[in-house]
Amino acid sequence: MTAAAPALTEVLGGDVRIACTGLSLFEDALQRQGVKPAPVRWHPPTDGVAAATAAAIALSDEVDRQNSAAVERLVACRPHLLGIESAADTLGLAHGEFLHAGPPIDWRGASGPLRGALIGAAVFEGLADTPEQAEAHFRSGDFTLEPCHGHRAVGPMAGVVSPAMPMLVLGDGDRRAFCSLNEGLGKVLRFGAYSPEVITRLRWMRDVLAPILDAALRLGEPLDVWAMVTEALLMGDECHNRSRAATSLLLRSLGGTLLELEAASSEVAECYRFIGGNDHFFLNITMGAAKLAADSARGVEGSTVVVAMARNGTEFGIQLAGTGDDWFTGPSGVPEGLLFSGFSESDANPDIGDSTITETVGLGAFAMAAAPAIVGFVGGTAATATGSTLAMYEIAVGEHPSFRVAALDNRGTPVGIDAARVCRTGILPAVNTGIAGRVAGTGQIGAGFVEPPRSCFAQAVQSFATRHPELLTARPA
Amino acid sequence: MTAAAPALTEVLGGDVRIACTGLSLFEDALQRQGVKPAPVRWHPPTDGVAAATAAAIALSDEVDRQNSAAVERLVACRPHLLGIESAADTLGLAHGEFLHAGPPIDWRGASGPLRGALIGAAVFEGLADTPEQAEAHFRSGDFTLEPCHGHRAVGPMAGVVSPAMPMLVLGDGDRRAFCSLNEGLGKVLRFGAYSPEVITRLRWMRDVLAPILDAALRLGEPLDVWAMVTEALLMGDECHNRSRAATSLLLRSLGGTLLELEAASSEVAECYRFIGGNDHFFLNITMGAAKLAADSARGVEGSTVVVAMARNGTEFGIQLAGTGDDWFTGPSGVPEGLLFSGFSESDANPDIGDSTITETVGLGAFAMAAAPAIVGFVGGTAATATGSTLAMYEIAVGEHPSFRVAALDNRGTPVGIDAARVCRTGILPAVNTGIAGRVAGTGQIGAGFVEPPRSCFAQAVQSFATRHPELLTARPA
Repeated sequence: MTAAAPALTEVLGGDVRIACTGLSLFEDALQRQGVKPAPVRWHPPTDGVAAATAAAIALSDEVDRQNSAAVERLVACRPHLLGIESAADTLGLAHGEFLHAGPPIDWRGASGPLRGALIGAAVFEGLADTPEQAEAHFRSGDFTLEPCHGHRAVGPMAGVVSPAMPMLVLGDGDRRAFCSLNEGLGKVLRFGAYSPEVITRLRWMRDVLAPILDAALRLGEPLDVWAMVTEALLMGDECHNRSRAATSLLLRSLGGTLLELEAASSEVAECYRFIGGNDHFFLNITMGAAKLAADSARGVEGSTVVVAMARNGTEFGIQLAGTGDDWFTGPSGVPEGLLFSGFSESDANPDIGDSTITETVGLGAFAMAAAPAIVGFVGGTAATATGSTLAMYEIAVGEHPSFRVAALDNRGTPVGIDAARVCRTGILPAVNTGIAGRVAGTGQIGAGFVEPPRSCFAQAVQSFATRHPELLTARPA
Repeated sequence: MTAAAPALTEVLGGDVRIACTGLSLFEDALQRQGVKPAPVRWHPPTDGVAAATAAAIALSDEVDRQNSAAVERLVACRPHLLGIESAADTLGLAHGEFLHAGPPIDWRGASGPLRGALIGAAVFEGLADTPEQAEAHFRSGDFTLEPCHGHRAVGPMAGVVSPAMPMLVLGDGDRRAFCSLNEGLGKVLRFGAYSPEVITRLRWMRDVLAPILDAALRLGEPLDVWAMVTEALLMGDECHNRSRAATSLLLRSLGGTLLELEAASSEVAECYRFIGGNDHFFLNITMGAAKLAADSARGVEGSTVVVAMARNGTEFGIQLAGTGDDWFTGPSGVPEGLLFSGFSESDANPDIGDSTITETVGLGAFAMAAAPAIVGFVGGTAATATGSTLAMYEIAVGEHPSFRVAALDNRGTPVGIDAARVCRTGILPAVNTGIAGRVAGTGQIGAGFVEPPRSCFAQAVQSFATRHPELLTARPA
């Protein structure tokens, strides 16, 4: 700008307001010239979708109706925790069949933590005596790998499920979904650890914890998971990376029954302390319940609502209500946040796990306004937590009727991610997550935030448009 | 204002801002004349204290130092729950001696709920066969009445303690404080009910609950009460009218030990369910711990810090660190808030109970920013909860090093009420509270907020000034 040019205020008058976004260069210049800038959040629309396609979906009353229908089904689901059964019994999983988190992947594409968890599961199943034997079997294709999501199941982090593993059984009427049990922190299978202590714990969970917890669950009324989650949201959980309240409420609910079980009191006490020693125990219950709820929106053909977001440690994938069982994937990002001492960013594995099913149903980063204390675990300030929830209303179809945020005067959490709106606004779903070590066997090294790849939303919306050309011609009256 | 008078904007120019307080008359008039008012919170200083006295205390470096010293002692206290013992054993209470909440009062001055609780306690002690007999004894002065606070004890609502009642024992080093056990909701002694079910429950608490809980407490490490309260503040409790998280954490902590007790499992299960059925169970533990902490600031002679705020259902009283055992009292207000269905304001008893010991140490209404969900119980919006905490920084000497509010980016709660600053600013300590029915035996009828009488702060500060004339001459260098 030359010295001779008139000041902006001279040209535009003194009370002009200018919306600014992106780099602060323009904003700073305005301020120096006495114009008050109004910074706004804005993202360019996502590449890879023709502008006309995104607009045509946005203008379609029919897609709008179908999105509402999908979210109505999702929020109407009332998951109950019915009991615990083996993956063989519930999922019909046979010896040599393994499930994993995220979209489909083979051994060659698997990251360290996923490989480590598969090795551990093979040893746990007695299919190999040593990690080396297990690895050889996987490498030569002796075992099959499929996503949990295709079997009405979810698993945190590596999310590996094998036939002998106990699974939480979530039900609503005749419908079912399943999730493995949380092993606690430190060296655990889901973070890719497979040392003898990991296998020993898995056997104890199968032989002691599962039968005792199953007995307690079947003695009482089926546990209403959303009632407990609703309460936990009023107690500072967002139910993805913070489940301290929900885990406490679970024990409070089961304690009386556990005290009356006929099992040896020392074993029951051991189970009680195992659950009480792990704030994340309830996460897997939330995940199974969220899977049941999200699955109830599947097959609403004209809907662009996301019914699965999941990562296998290499790729991040999504599925839409209206695009069948197709996965739309992009490279999994490396989460940023707080690392445990002794670790650096180079130790972090790309994002992994099915736990983003919580964000899919309006929990996790979508409910962070309810959980300001979580920033001590994932990073940021109280405003980060509130802002995360507020931003998600921009891409959500509705507000959850049960999941409410006291700090927002009981507003429901944003629920039902509209992939078309993600493309139009450029606002990606917020995700908070645990961070796994890159090397198999390391375990958790921190927690933080990650952005899903934009490309998978673009692909999904493009595929939806190709699949439903009739919906694109619809125009508002 | 006549039509000929110029508009305010003509006189003062267009961009004037005027601070408004009190009645909205002036604010409304300004707005009609195109002037944007800036409403501010302001109270006139409290009557009854000479302006010079209040100013002289405010300017005294020595009082400032002593106030800091008092609050340092208060926050340095680390109460642990050691066990449960009878009031006879711990307090040396003899047959016919009764303690009650709040400042001293006799039978004649006692309100309905206090009379009801005293009647019930006399029947529980076997000192009367019928309520009528008990009443006659009290009326004729056969029994003695003294405040809990004078005996290192506190009690919620009526706060009646009799020799056979089990008391929570709180300790820090050699120091001790005591509180009765919470009976739950509905018809309970502390709200003035004395029907046979009330007496039966008190006997069960004495014979079953107290010994089992005492055994569990003595088996493990002494329970660090502030560690649990600190955690509960991150889980949506403010630890006066909301103790849902703290109660859950207590059970989570004790469950393993309870499972290993040699007592009959059905009785232990009954105890577990009794505690789990009452979100307020932990309140009495917090109260005992708060009493221990507040008592540690007693006797700091040059300090105007409040060490007790308590109500007997007729009068609200306070004690200061620097005024010995004197009580300064005023009429107890009727709380305003949410009433249970079927009750109206005319059913409400004036404010009652020692539970304001929580506000005295930086909890309750002072910590409400941590507990937005509590407004569903006491009334208001999320902003009410945040505003309650923020306002209290104005009259507090310090910020609590352990009690932190995640929503305020871990700022410590305001702690240590300076009675002189209350008088100078006119800002009264915020109190949230349960509301008792006026008629003995009614029980709880709601929950809400109440303002302490200004006069007790004025009396306390005047008495402090009379007692410490040497401190008033101090002037800053």
